[in-house]
Formats: sequence, structure tokens, C-alpha cells
Amino acid sequence: MKSVAIVGASGYTGRELLRLLERHEHLSAGVVMSSRPEGSTDQGRTLEPLNAARFADVDGVFLCTPHGMTSALAQAAVQTGRPVVDLSADFRLRDKDAFAAIYGQEHQAPELLADAVYGLTEHNREAIASAKLVANPGCYPTSILLPLLPLTQHDLLASDSPIIADSKSGVSGAGKQAKDRTHFGNVHDNFLAYGIGTHRHAPEIAQELGQSIVFTPHLLPTFRGILSTIYVTPQPGVTAATIRSCLTEQYGQEPNVSVYQDGTPELHNVQLTNQCHIAVHDSGPLVVITSAIDNLVKGASGQALQNMNLMLGFAETEGLT
Amino acid sequence: MKSVAIVGASGYTGRELLRLLERHEHLSAGVVMSSRPEGSTDQGRTLEPLNAARFADVDGVFLCTPHGMTSALAQAAVQTGRPVVDLSADFRLRDKDAFAAIYGQEHQAPELLADAVYGLTEHNREAIASAKLVANPGCYPTSILLPLLPLTQHDLLASDSPIIADSKSGVSGAGKQAKDRTHFGNVHDNFLAYGIGTHRHAPEIAQELGQSIVFTPHLLPTFRGILSTIYVTPQPGVTAATIRSCLTEQYGQEPNVSVYQDGTPELHNVQLTNQCHIAVHDSGPLVVITSAIDNLVKGASGQALQNMNLMLGFAETEGLT
Amino acid sequence: MKSVAIVGASGYTGRELLRLLERHEHLSAGVVMSSRPEGSTDQGRTLEPLNAARFADVDGVFLCTPHGMTSALAQAAVQTGRPVVDLSADFRLRDKDAFAAIYGQEHQAPELLADAVYGLTEHNREAIASAKLVANPGCYPTSILLPLLPLTQHDLLASDSPIIADSKSGVSGAGKQAKDRTHFGNVHDNFLAYGIGTHRHAPEIAQELGQSIVFTPHLLPTFRGILSTIYVTPQPGVTAATIRSCLTEQYGQEPNVSVYQDGTPELHNVQLTNQCHIAVHDSGPLVVITSAIDNLVKGASGQALQNMNLMLGFAETEGLT
Amino acid sequence: MKSVAIVGASGYTGRELLRLLERHEHLSAGVVMSSRPEGSTDQGRTLEPLNAARFADVDGVFLCTPHGMTSALAQAAVQTGRPVVDLSADFRLRDKDAFAAIYGQEHQAPELLADAVYGLTEHNREAIASAKLVANPGCYPTSILLPLLPLTQHDLLASDSPIIADSKSGVSGAGKQAKDRTHFGNVHDNFLAYGIGTHRHAPEIAQELGQSIVFTPHLLPTFRGILSTIYVTPQPGVTAATIRSCLTEQYGQEPNVSVYQDGTPELHNVQLTNQCHIAVHDSGPLVVITSAIDNLVKGASGQALQNMNLMLGFAETEGLT
Repeated sequence: MKSVAIVGASGYTGRELLRLLERHEHLSAGVVMSSRPEGSTDQGRTLEPLNAARFADVDGVFLCTPHGMTSALAQAAVQTGRPVVDLSADFRLRDKDAFAAIYGQEHQAPELLADAVYGLTEHNREAIASAKLVANPGCYPTSILLPLLPLTQHDLLASDSPIIADSKSGVSGAGKQAKDRTHFGNVHDNFLAYGIGTHRHAPEIAQELGQSIVFTPHLLPTFRGILSTIYVTPQPGVTAATIRSCLTEQYGQEPNVSVYQDGTPELHNVQLTNQCHIAVHDSGPLVVITSAIDNLVKGASGQALQNMNLMLGFAETEGLT
Repeated sequence: MKSVAIVGASGYTGRELLRLLERHEHLSAGVVMSSRPEGSTDQGRTLEPLNAARFADVDGVFLCTPHGMTSALAQAAVQTGRPVVDLSADFRLRDKDAFAAIYGQEHQAPELLADAVYGLTEHNREAIASAKLVANPGCYPTSILLPLLPLTQHDLLASDSPIIADSKSGVSGAGKQAKDRTHFGNVHDNFLAYGIGTHRHAPEIAQELGQSIVFTPHLLPTFRGILSTIYVTPQPGVTAATIRSCLTEQYGQEPNVSVYQDGTPELHNVQLTNQCHIAVHDSGPLVVITSAIDNLVKGASGQALQNMNLMLGFAETEGLT
Repeated sequence: MKSVAIVGASGYTGRELLRLLERHEHLSAGVVMSSRPEGSTDQGRTLEPLNAARFADVDGVFLCTPHGMTSALAQAAVQTGRPVVDLSADFRLRDKDAFAAIYGQEHQAPELLADAVYGLTEHNREAIASAKLVANPGCYPTSILLPLLPLTQHDLLASDSPIIADSKSGVSGAGKQAKDRTHFGNVHDNFLAYGIGTHRHAPEIAQELGQSIVFTPHLLPTFRGILSTIYVTPQPGVTAATIRSCLTEQYGQEPNVSVYQDGTPELHNVQLTNQCHIAVHDSGPLVVITSAIDNLVKGASGQALQNMNLMLGFAETEGLT
Repeated sequence: MKSVAIVGASGYTGRELLRLLERHEHLSAGVVMSSRPEGSTDQGRTLEPLNAARFADVDGVFLCTPHGMTSALAQAAVQTGRPVVDLSADFRLRDKDAFAAIYGQEHQAPELLADAVYGLTEHNREAIASAKLVANPGCYPTSILLPLLPLTQHDLLASDSPIIADSKSGVSGAGKQAKDRTHFGNVHDNFLAYGIGTHRHAPEIAQELGQSIVFTPHLLPTFRGILSTIYVTPQPGVTAATIRSCLTEQYGQEPNVSVYQDGTPELHNVQLTNQCHIAVHDSGPLVVITSAIDNLVKGASGQALQNMNLMLGFAETEGLT
């Protein structure tokens, strides 16, 4: 039995990691820290205050603290030699100037950027397994990159037409802190777009995809789940069937990705799982791809655990099925 | 005080008309019919069985029956000379062959198609005022055509790039009948796309817009409301500001359309109103338009009443503010 | 056209008053104040800072500020001679020591307590019409006192058995401020009891009813509405039919109370209305009464307007139908 | 690895059993039957038509078919000697005349009634382990009997005062079939009581408790979960503390029941678990007990599996943690 530290266990992603680890046969949460260490977790674990010296007592470190606060913790954790998975945005962008521009603050640990591996498990498995520091992907990017990366890599999309991702997320993506935007009275029976053309996940998607896309996030009156509806212009001769075949070939053996041969994904099909479900349809001159994940699992803590499993030498799906 | 017949008062659109008419100072529901005339309406009105002879007793007729069942009733109603607003799909498509192809049945009153006026009030006001028969628009088309028609009419959009409408609707759009798709257990905390590339509202939009668009409807876990997120490629030199100005000029004096100068519409802003709220944003090479309506009001019964007000010579917004 | 001041217009009850006044033909919101006067109301009204001097410019004053903050404003408002309806808890309890014990602070205007009239409209109509200051009832007490008062007044209940009110409220009762308890993630798909045996509305109910009851509030995953399920032990020979008759006789002519002859009330039947719907059933040795209101309307702003209508000489239901 | 048949796998309780068995290390669903054997289960299992001959191929039988349809299947299953857990209401009432009166039909297998053991696991563990046929309790009775049985057994309650259970259930209790009552439009943002004084679970509770109670069920706008708020009159000298101690002593070692020392249960705390959470509070002359379960797990399929585990000699909590 190995042990990990969860730093920032008061928030949704830390809490979700604790939930997942309860079912892991070889890994447990040895240290559970929070910057607000009052009380205990839902699982009854006592919260410790943040203390980097405790990293020496575990075999791996999950950082669930907010972006900005995370870099210094990552430095300390990496120095212990323990594998680190950072669920914040601090190491997702490889360019520190891009980080500063987008997040409005200087990067606090730029020397680590070159070592950080982008943790989209299905596409970076080898690099993740040997990484010191994994930058766990954002929730929206996970739902969008999984269907798109094989298509750009196989050159199935027209290069001169924009890719559009119209994404809809449950409220847990906005975090556990009480604010107007998450008040029940403002979410229940409501729906809206936000951050049109300006959301911080767009540069992350562009970096990994090698091209900018048009990205519009929306807020759903659900707690968990993201559905992204993605519009692509295929190369001449390419249809939904071609794209479906490409994705099926890519992901046919993947335990955490399913490509539908018919039907479309619903949030119900992926909530509380580490799965990404993908369907492909023709629609006039375009191909429409729908992609569903649980934003707290495959979009955050589940993928983080998938990555930590690789880093610690466990089966990738331990605790995730 | 004038009086109307509501045919098909058991369903959501008939019920909504009854709700709206309660606040109308010059128009009341004199005759309330249903093919399932058991019991009474929410407002306590006794339901009569379908009976075209009763049209002679009123000043106007609203047809809220399902498509297919409506044509024969429309013939009878038109013959009485009463103004008729049909909320079904029977007279929205001007081409009877298109109707047969899309709705899977021969049109039952093709001789009326030439006389039917498409009831998008803000764009067909004069024709509606003098029409015998108004084909009330579908809910999705209303949310999509209001922002797009001025843009194609002013030639602000690139002609060689597809227009995309990614629309999300509350469950009331699926009707009052109990079926798996509307079971609480299948809607609550869920979200999905449906009818990708095949929805019946796409040809209606294409007919009115003069071009096909890529249309993807989705089902929201709310009761009322549609939000359409529309992606357009502007002509060179055209930006969100240009498009916002065009829409502001077009709709600035309209009582039932608002163009946002900042912010984006939410369903909460339009539910239970006859308003269409529109916002425009730049997003990379595209312009993103969000458009929100209450599908049962501006998307159905409210617009139907707006049209009937015109046909009977009342102020257009009577009962709608 | 007369005019009122709404003090505390940023919260739910102030906002609801503005919504209701839009439909009032003889009364408008002339002054709209807030202790957080940033921005404007949903209706686009500019918020003024709190300023008692402005009370001279209107014909009546609604106080929607939190308890404790309200007393000083009430003093100023009463001194102008304008009729005042206070929606806070400050004047509901006639005993200043009880107030201090329950609300944890000294009463700031005890000299007004003797003049304050409890604003349960259907039971205090005459006193309200001539009052300087009306203490608008709490939401839970409104739903509980309306069915119970006639029964105790007609001595239909066994005096030695406790009355139980098991009440369930939508989240708007917890106010507009963001806090953990109102976070979507803590309300959606959830349900719980709170304040068992300790809720501040219990002494208010006891004062008006002349006896203590057992009161358990619960939090529903809805925005609006209260349903109270009330258990009473009837006097020998008294049944649900007796009690239903008593309530029907009491409220038969009331425009804002309905006593069901069959069926039970649902929140859907009363949301956005100023109605209280009541049903009565036998259940073993007890009689079960269900009572539904919209907590923001009949439970707060609607009843406040009903009272102000009386104080200003308007028809009681103006703006409320 | 042993194997069971699930009869009636299309409904919610059958589906839930399949979900639970996925995590069971010693038991799998060998045969999955439905009276509507179209398609497959959510888990991808092919549905077989009902066929009692297949019971010989498994080690135990779960009957998830509707009451009335179940008795004949139970006869066949019992004759094979396989342990049978019936999730319907057919064998819960020991008196066939009571069954006929309450369910409106003659009992089809009255000869089995004497052998059926009521499957409230924590109270009938030994009889269940050796039973041929277990009548799995109703969801409401489970939430009510667990807190009440120890209190009546220890004579802590006044014998001459009624016990009241005010229960609130999510929609899944109404079953998977589409009907008006489960239409999203009738549940979402709504709340109501139903079956006041007449619900079929009241006689079941009375039989097990040895006394009638006043029982009022309500429908919550959630999918899963029951919260029962129970009002009891304690014997002189008995308080909430006494009752809490009694329940803590009774259930302190139970893996599936938790007695709160402070706080109150929320549906969120028990959804998707086989737990019953109980809290006890003083409230005037009464004691108020709140009790929460997931109606589909501890209220149905989870308790059924708990019972089958006992019958097959497995650890009681296998597949349930």
C-alpha cells in the first residue's frame, strides 16, 4: 500500500480524489491538507494545515490548490522526488509569458515549466509515466482534445476552416466557494453562455492542438458533467463515418474512452465515471462531434489518479472502475 | 371584448394561451376545445370536444393541435372568415412535397399553403395583419431567425461559410405527453444533443433564411426556455460591433426584442416573457451570437397572440407585457 | 398614481415588490434604496443609498432590510406619517425581551412595538387599514396560521395534544446572499431538515396562535414555495370534513385563499401568486392539513402589498392578480 | 463465484441490482430477465424473456417484477430450492386478506406467506439467513422502521399518542414507466403530498411495528432518496438524548446504519449508498427523528443484496461499500 498527499482537500477536486481513493486497493490518502483546515472531510478525515515537510512522508503528491498558490508547493514537492500531479492551471501552459498574460500574475516557478508533462493520459502515457510533474488538463480541454487530437494528427480536417467547440458544464466546474454565480437561485432552471472568446481554457486547447479554436463555454443547471458539441470541416471525401472510424481505431482499446457507433452521449452516461464518450454525425457540410465527461473525474481528479497510477507503476485504471 | 377559440387546449401551447389571455383586456377565450375533453383546464375552463361549427361563435381561431391533425381544422376555420393562427407545423413549409418528405405524410390542405403567412412578427408584420392564416413559427427557428435575418439582409455574413446554430431547449418543447424522453429520471441532472443534422426545424429555418444552416438541438434540464448560440463568419471588416449595431438599429424600437450592449442573455431573463434577448461577441475569426426566448411564449403562444393582435387590430403587445 | 419607497431593494423581497408593482395601476416605486446601491435592479431601476429623508417624497414605505437594521428606518418612516410595512422580523414579536432572546440583540425601537399590527391580512384587515406600522408575517407562519387560526378560534382542536407543522421551503427563503447553504452544489438533488425545535418562526406562530406548536422546517431543491403539512388532533366528533367546512366558510369569499374540496395543493399551483391553497384529510386519529404558498409573494412581498393596499385605500388585490 | 437471476431487469430496482453486482466479488448476474426483453440493460446485458426454467441455472433469484405478477414466479423459484428475495409487495403482508384489500386482487401464492421472512436486515438477520423467501421491505417502511423499532421494543414511547411519519421521496420511487406524475414538467420545481391516510406502505409499517402510525408521503424534485421526519411522544423522563442513546446502542456496530450525535442527515449523505442515517432532536413535548436512505439502495436493491448475501453465506456488506 502506497500513500499520497492531497493538498487542497477542501475543494471539489480534493474531495473527489478522496472519494476515488476509497476504492483504490494500493493507494491511500496518507496526508490531507487544506489552507482552511477547519473540521474534516466528508470522509471524516482530519485536515492538516499546508506543510511541505509532510511530502517526505508519502509516495506521491496531488496539488488541488488554486492556480497561483500551487507553484511554490509544486517546487517543494518536486524537490522531494515524489511524483507530483498538479490539478491547477499553473503548469498547463508551457510559456510563462502566456501564463502571465492569461492568469494576470507572474509565474512563480518558471524553472519547472520545461519538466511539466501535460497529463492527457491517452496521448502522453509514456512521458507521464516518467514525469516528475504532471500538469493535469483542464476539464473543457479534456472533453475537446480527446476527440480532436486524432483528427488533426491524421489530417482529416480542412486546415482553413475554424474548429468550434460549444461546451456546456455543470456548476461544480465553478468551484465550491459560495458566490453569486453558484447561488442556487442563479443556476436552477437557468442556462447561459459565459467567457465567450475569452475563456482561459482556449489557449490551453490551442497549445495542445497546435491551432486556435472558437470556444464557447456555458453553465448548465446540473452539478457534474460536460458535454462539448464540436463542429469541424472535414477534408474533401471525409465524412462522419471516416472520422468515427479514426476515433474507433484510436480509442478501441482504451479503457476510459468510448466511441459510439450509434446514438449520442448523455451526461447520465458518464457522471461519476472516468469515461469520455464520443459520437460523430454528419450535418450538412460539417461533421458534429459530441463528447461527454464528468468534469470532476475524467476532467480533473479521475484523470489525475489515472496519471498518478502510471507514475507509481500501478495499473492505470486502479480505483477508476 | 372579442373572443377566440383555442383548439387543442390540453397541451402546453394551448394552456399557455389561456394563461396569456387572462391578462388581455380586449380578448378572451370564448371556446376551448380538446381532442381529449376530459376535465377542465388549469384555469378551470371546461373543455369542449373538437367541433368546427363553433368557429362561427368567435372572432379568431388558435390551432394548437398536433401537426397533421391541424389542416382539416384550418380549412374549416378559414372558411368561416375568422383569422386563424396555426401553432402546428402544418403551414410553415410552403412546399407540400417538402412537408411530405419531412413530416412523413401527405399535406391535407395544400390549397391553403399559398395563403399562409409565416408569423415571425417582427419581419412580416404587414402581411400578418391582413392574413387569413398565419403559420406560427417553430420555437427554435424564432430564436435563430430573429438575430440572423437582419444580417443576411444587410449582407454582413460571408456567403461561403456555414452558419451554425447550437440550440438548447427546456423540456416543455417536447410536449405534455408522458414518454421516456420527458420522464424526470431521464431529464433531471442530464443533458444531451438530439436530432443532429436531421431536426425538422432546419428546413423551416432554411426556407426563411434563404440558405441552409447547421443546426444542433439539445435538451436542457429546465422546463422553459431556449438559448441558441450561433456562429457566423463575418464579411471582411465586419466585427461583433458591426453586427450589434445592425441588430440594434433593426430592433431598437421593437417592444419584444432586446439587443444587449454588454453581457449575455440568460434563460431567467426571458422566461414567462414574450421577449427575445440577443448578444453579440467576437470570438477569433467568427462572431458568436447568443439568443434567448421562452419557447412557450415568444417561441409559441406569445408570438401567436402577438400575431392575432395584429389580425384583430389590437395593439401588438396586448396581453404580453 | 401614488408612490412608495422600497428600502432594501437588492434582496429577494425588495426585488419581488418591484416585480409586483409593475402590474399595479395606482402605485409605483418612486424611491428604490439599498445599503449596497451598486448598479441597478433587474427592472433597470437605479438604486439610491439609504436615506430616510426621502420618505417624505412618497406615500408609503416598504422596509425590506434585514432584521436589526430595520428598526431605525422604521422610526424615521413612521415619523413622516407615511404608512409603513416592515417585511423584516423586527416588529413581529410584541415582547421586546422575547425579541432580544430570539434574535440575540436588543430591540432598537421598542416604543413602536405597541403600535405595530401583525399583517396577516385575512385576520387583521381592519387594524391593518388604520395602522401606522404593519409587521409583515414570516413566510412559514403565514402558511401555518392561515389554516390553523379558524380551527383554534372555533375550538375544533383537542387542547391537550400538540399541533405539528412539518414545513418545506424553497431556497429563496434563505435570501439572496451567497453562502454555503445556498450553493447550488448543496441544494440541487438534496433535501434536509434544519432548525428543529429552534427556528425563530416558532415563537411568532405561538404568539399569534396563542399556543406553542412543534415546528420543523426543511429545505427543498426549488426556488419558490412553501408547503406545510400540519397534523392536528380534532375534538371528539370533529373530522376532516368538519375542519374543511370551517375553513371553507372562513375563506370562501377571500380572493387570496382557496380551500380544496378534493385533491392536495402543489407548489406549482401557487408559485408566482398571492394565493394560499389549503386541503384537509383524515389520517387515522389525526387530521392532516396541507397548505401551500409562494414564500416570496403571500409569504412576503405579496402580502406586504396586500397590506399597503389596505393602508392606502386601494382594492386589496391591486397588483396581485 | 456464484450467480443470480434478476427477474424484471428493465425497471429501476433491477437496474440498480445490476449496478451493485458489478462491484460484488463473489456474485454475478448470470440471468437477466424482463417481461419487455427488447434491447439490453444499461450495462450492456442482453435481456431474456421471463422463463422460470432458468432459475435452475443460478444460485439465487431476485424478483423485481411488479406486485401481482411476482407470486407465480416466486412459487417457481422457491420450488427450485434457490434462495429468493422478492422486491415487490407480494409477500410483505402476512395476511392474504389484508393483501387483497390493499392491493385490490387475490393473492396468487398464499401458501408461501407463512414462509416469507420480512427482510429488514438489521432486525431479522437470523431468520433471513435461513429463509427460502425474503419479502424485501418497502422504501418508506425501511426509513421509518429502522429508527422506530428499537424505541417501541425498549418501551420509550408513550403508548397513547400517535406516531407520525412525514416522509419525502425522490421520483424514482414512482418507477421507470412514463406517466403524468413522473413527467419532468410536473416534478421539476414542484412539491406535493399524496396518498394522505391511504398509502399502501402504512399497513406494512403497522404490521412490523405492532401499531398504526399516521403516515404522509410527499414527492420531491430529486431522483433518489427518502427523508422521513418522525414525530414521537416520549415516555415521561425520556428525551432526545435517551432515544439517541438507545439507537446508538442498537446500531453502533451496524455497518449500514449511522446515528448522528449532532447535525441532521441530508439526502446527499446517503444517495448511492446502502446507509440509513438517523438524527434525534427535542422539539417541545415531542422528539423529532429524521431518517434518510437512498430509496433504490437501502430502500430496495441494496437491502435485497444485503439479504441475499446472508442467504448465500457471504459477508453482509459485499458489493455494498
